[in-house]
Amino acid sequence: MNERRTIDLGPLPELIGYVLRRAQLAVFQDFFAAFAPFDIRPAQFSVLTIIERNPGLTQTQVAEALGIKRTNFVGMLDELEKRSLAERRQARDKRSYALYLTADGAALMRRLKPVIKAHESRMIACVGEDGRDRLVALLTGIVDGKPRRATLKNGKAPRALRPGSAET
Amino acid sequence: MNERRTIDLGPLPELIGYVLRRAQLAVFQDFFAAFAPFDIRPAQFSVLTIIERNPGLTQTQVAEALGIKRTNFVGMLDELEKRSLAERRQARDKRSYALYLTADGAALMRRLKPVIKAHESRMIACVGEDGRDRLVALLTGIVDGKPRRATLKNGKAPRALRPGSAET
Repeated sequence: MNERRTIDLGPLPELIGYVLRRAQLAVFQDFFAAFAPFDIRPAQFSVLTIIERNPGLTQTQVAEALGIKRTNFVGMLDELEKRSLAERRQARDKRSYALYLTADGAALMRRLKPVIKAHESRMIACVGEDGRDRLVALLTGIVDGKPRRATLKNGKAPRALRPGSAET
Repeated sequence: MNERRTIDLGPLPELIGYVLRRAQLAVFQDFFAAFAPFDIRPAQFSVLTIIERNPGLTQTQVAEALGIKRTNFVGMLDELEKRSLAERRQARDKRSYALYLTADGAALMRRLKPVIKAHESRMIACVGEDGRDRLVALLTGIVDGKPRRATLKNGKAPRALRPGSAET
């Protein structure tokens, strides 16, 4: 017999970390489904986006900008390189590699533009445009880890997500 | 030479999924540090909370309540049982197990109360009390994955969720 029972979640539904995690999983689930035909995961999309917009950055710069651990980043880049989406070239200082999209990588990113747009529209449909702005501002406040007055001033805080700010 | 360069993050800082993930990692980082002395991860804390408040639930009920895949849940529970924090007892229908905290598990949960409270206070300090209420309501809207009007009905933060407020 399948017993129907109301489950007491206690304090969980009001704990920021719990709700954040549930929401992040829900959003990623939609992302996975949308990007599965391209075999692209969220972190890969972020890396490709940074390389696309900033050709020639070093591995360390990209990893830091995204808050990805260097060891994990090397593995991610190996995979992108193996799939001919990104490539490492010797940097000027000879001690590091500069990152670039390949032609395939650039073509893929063009194909992904409408996919990410549609995904984001589905997410915005859950909270509304205003809700999205407020949500991003609140989340940015958490990423920055600063008292709220610093984050809530203009209601929007994309600038607060400066590279490296979450690293400290 | 360490080249200082402003990195263009493109659309990432305004994508709900990207900011959610960064925020979730920031919150979990604080959680990990706070709970390290007890060797408790966020998902374990959630499971122990549900079992504490709902003794006798089946594995399936707890896993579903938390959105954890059954296979992953079995491994988690094995570990909690091995550490004598939770235990499985044969359920009435003999086909499943009912879950309970052990005395050690109950004692641990009492010790964790101030730890989770302090962690949550640090998170709230980033967004303020009102910000927390709004954040939880917005995130819940995403978890529920319903158009916003439908989600607002059962929201937790009445002030932020008034019909006719900035939400609509």
